[in-house]
Amino acid sequence: MYRLTVRDRVMIAHSFNGEIFGPAQGLHGATYVIDAEFQREHLDEDGLIVDIGLAHQVLGAAIQAIAFKNLDEMPEFDGDNTTTEYLAHWLWGRLAEQARGGGLGPSGRGLTGLCITLRESDVAWASYEASLV
Amino acid sequence: MYRLTVRDRVMIAHSFNGEIFGPAQGLHGATYVIDAEFQREHLDEDGLIVDIGLAHQVLGAAIQAIAFKNLDEMPEFDGDNTTTEYLAHWLWGRLAEQARGGGLGPSGRGLTGLCITLRESDVAWASYEASLV
Amino acid sequence: MYRLTVRDRVMIAHSFNGEIFGPAQGLHGATYVIDAEFQREHLDEDGLIVDIGLAHQVLGAAIQAIAFKNLDEMPEFDGDNTTTEYLAHWLWGRLAEQARGGGLGPSGRGLTGLCITLRESDVAWASYEASLV
Amino acid sequence: MYRLTVRDRVMIAHSFNGEIFGPAQGLHGATYVIDAEFQREHLDEDGLIVDIGLAHQVLGAAIQAIAFKNLDEMPEFDGDNTTTEYLAHWLWGRLAEQARGGGLGPSGRGLTGLCITLRESDVAWASYEASLV
Amino acid sequence: MYRLTVRDRVMIAHSFNGEIFGPAQGLHGATYVIDAEFQREHLDEDGLIVDIGLAHQVLGAAIQAIAFKNLDEMPEFDGDNTTTEYLAHWLWGRLAEQARGGGLGPSGRGLTGLCITLRESDVAWASYEASLV
Amino acid sequence: MYRLTVRDRVMIAHSFNGEIFGPAQGLHGATYVIDAEFQREHLDEDGLIVDIGLAHQVLGAAIQAIAFKNLDEMPEFDGDNTTTEYLAHWLWGRLAEQARGGGLGPSGRGLTGLCITLRESDVAWASYEASLV
Repeated sequence: MYRLTVRDRVMIAHSFNGEIFGPAQGLHGATYVIDAEFQREHLDEDGLIVDIGLAHQVLGAAIQAIAFKNLDEMPEFDGDNTTTEYLAHWLWGRLAEQARGGGLGPSGRGLTGLCITLRESDVAWASYEASLV
Repeated sequence: MYRLTVRDRVMIAHSFNGEIFGPAQGLHGATYVIDAEFQREHLDEDGLIVDIGLAHQVLGAAIQAIAFKNLDEMPEFDGDNTTTEYLAHWLWGRLAEQARGGGLGPSGRGLTGLCITLRESDVAWASYEASLV
Repeated sequence: MYRLTVRDRVMIAHSFNGEIFGPAQGLHGATYVIDAEFQREHLDEDGLIVDIGLAHQVLGAAIQAIAFKNLDEMPEFDGDNTTTEYLAHWLWGRLAEQARGGGLGPSGRGLTGLCITLRESDVAWASYEASLV
Repeated sequence: MYRLTVRDRVMIAHSFNGEIFGPAQGLHGATYVIDAEFQREHLDEDGLIVDIGLAHQVLGAAIQAIAFKNLDEMPEFDGDNTTTEYLAHWLWGRLAEQARGGGLGPSGRGLTGLCITLRESDVAWASYEASLV
Repeated sequence: MYRLTVRDRVMIAHSFNGEIFGPAQGLHGATYVIDAEFQREHLDEDGLIVDIGLAHQVLGAAIQAIAFKNLDEMPEFDGDNTTTEYLAHWLWGRLAEQARGGGLGPSGRGLTGLCITLRESDVAWASYEASLV
Repeated sequence: MYRLTVRDRVMIAHSFNGEIFGPAQGLHGATYVIDAEFQREHLDEDGLIVDIGLAHQVLGAAIQAIAFKNLDEMPEFDGDNTTTEYLAHWLWGRLAEQARGGGLGPSGRGLTGLCITLRESDVAWASYEASLV
C-alpha cells in the first residue's frame, strides 16, 4: 500500500447544539490543519501515487467552500453539528468526488482509498478514512 | 472509519532487565507524549465519535497511576520490562476498560477500536492498537 | 538569561474591519496554540524560573476569558481588530499583571520579561515580548 | 498490533522525467525525514517489538547508500523517477531484507509488517507499507 | 516588540567546496522549511504588524528564484558555499529590499527588524536576523 | 546575527526537593529534547557559523555524561534540584567550554553566544542563553 499526504489549513466559525458540548455551544471557531492522504496499490507509470501539485490544488479548492465562513449559516450543514469528525467526512466526500471525476488527473482514478485528518489543535484531531473502490 | 485522537503526557522513572538494553539497564526515565485514538464506524447522534472533553479526562485519569512514579517499584509491573510498547499496551487496557464500562459516556460503548501511541522522544515512538468489539 | 515556556490553546470566533483583511472580514474563527515564555536573570533558591504548575494554571485561567467566545461581542475588544498580534499583546498584559501581583508566586515577582506567542496555524504565528521591570 | 517507529533523515539531489513534474524536471534536491515503523503481533520475551538501538543502526546504515548523493547518477535507479513514494518502497525493500536476514536481531525475524514514511517537507509526505510474512 | 512569522518551503540542489564539508562536497540537495519573522515596535492602525497575506506572497515570490534549482549553476552564488546560514542571509536581503521598497505595503515600511530561519531537517536549522532601521 | 541550531535528546531519572514540586518530589524521569544554538556575527571563510557535523558530535558527547543516569546519584549535582532550567545552564557550561577550548574547531572560537533549550514535553521547555565573549 502506497500513501501520499498533502497538508493545508482553514479557519472557520461555528457553534454546536447539545448539552454534551458545554461551552462549545456558544459561537466560537477553529483553525483546522488538514491532511489529505491518497492511497493506491501500485505507482503509476511516472512513479507517482497522484500528481502532488494537483493534489495540493484540489485540496485547496475544496476547502475554499468553508474558508473564513460561519458554518452555522451554510445551508449545506443545516441541522448538523459541524464537529471535527463530521467535517473530516464532509471533506472526504468532496475529494472522493474529485478523484472519481478526474479532478486529480488520470492517475487519480486509480486511487483505492482516501483518509482526511483535521487537526483542531496541538492536542486533538479527527479523521475519516474509507475505500474509493 | 472515523478516528478521534487526544494527547496528554507523563513523566516516569524505570530501568530495564536484559543485556539487549545496554545503558538503559540503569535507572533512568522518560517523558511520554501520549496519543489516544478512538475509532468507530458511524458518528453518534450529536455528530461525535466520543465526547472529546470526556476523552481528555479519562486519558488524564488513566495516566495518573504512573505520573511521577518509579515504575520499578509498582507491583503492577513486577517482573516486566516497562518498555514504551509494553506501556502502550498497558494503557490500552485501562482505556478499553473505561470505554466498555461507560467511563467514556454512552457513545463510548459504540467505539470499535482503540490505538495508544507513546512518544518517548522526537525520534522514537510505539503504539498498540486492537479492536474493542 | 533563563526562559521557561508553557503551552496551552484556545478556540474563538471573530471578524475584522478593513479592506486589507479580504475574506477575513467575514465572521470566522481560529484555534490559537499559545506559548507563554517567562524570563529571569537568575534561578530562585529552588532552582526554578517560576513554578511550572502555577505557570500552567495562570495561563489556563487567563485564556478562559476568551475561550469559546465570539470576540466581536466582548466589550473589552470593542472597536479593535483582534488580530493574532493584538491578542498576543492583550494576553501579555493579563499575565504581566499576574506576575507583578503575586499570582505566579513569590518567584513570579522576580521575572524580568515575558513573551507571548499565538500560533494561528502551522504556517503563521505572532508574538509580543516586553520587559517586566 | 504493536508498532515501533524510529526516525532518521537524509539529503539527496535528483531530477524527474515527465511533463507532469513541471519545474521539478530540473535538477533539484530534498531532505527526507524518514520514519521506519516495525510491526508485530506480540512482544518478544524482553517486552520489545525490536531492539530500538539496532533499529536506529539498521535504518541509518540503509540510508547511507543515498546520503549526499545525486540519485540520477546511481545505476540502481536508472530509468526510474525517484519520487518520494518510489524511495519509500525502495527503502522498504532494504529494511525488509535486513529483518528477514537477521540484521535486526532474532526478534527482527518475528516482525509481521513494515511501513516506511518519507517526509519531503512540512506539507507533503509519502509511505509504503506491506506485510513481512 | 511584536513579531509575525509566516512559513513556506523550497527544494534545491547544491554542493560545497572545502574538506570540512566531508560527504556534502558531493552534489546533493535539501528541502528548506523557511520561517520569515517580521518585527515592529507598534501595531499599525489596522492592528497589524504587516499584511499577513502579502507576507506570504512576498516570501513565496522571493524563494521562486531558487525553487527546484541547482544553486551551483546560479551566477548569483558563484564562488560561495550556499550553506543554510548563507541562504538565510541571502533571503534576508531579498525580503529587506521588499520591506524597504514598499513590496510589503505601507506598513511594511514600519518594520524594525527581520529574522529568516531555514530548517534543513528535523534536527538542524539556521537563521539570520538584523535590524531594518 | 547568525544562529545555527542542532538537536539531540537524552533520558534521565531524578527527584526534586521542596514542597513547591508537589508529586515531582518523588523519583521520576524525563526525556529532554535538546536544541543547542550557536551564534556569531559573521560567517567564517567556508560560509559557516560552525562545522555542523562537529556541533552534533560535541552536543552528543556532552550529554553522554547524564544519558540513562539517575541524576540524584551524580556528585556533580549534589544538593541541587536538576530542573529543566538548571540543566539548560549546566549544559551551556559544558558546550561553552568546548567552544572556547577549540572542541568546536577553529571557527568555534569565533562564536559570540550560545543558547541551550531543553524540551521536557510537548507543552513545557526551558532555556539558558548567554554571551560567549
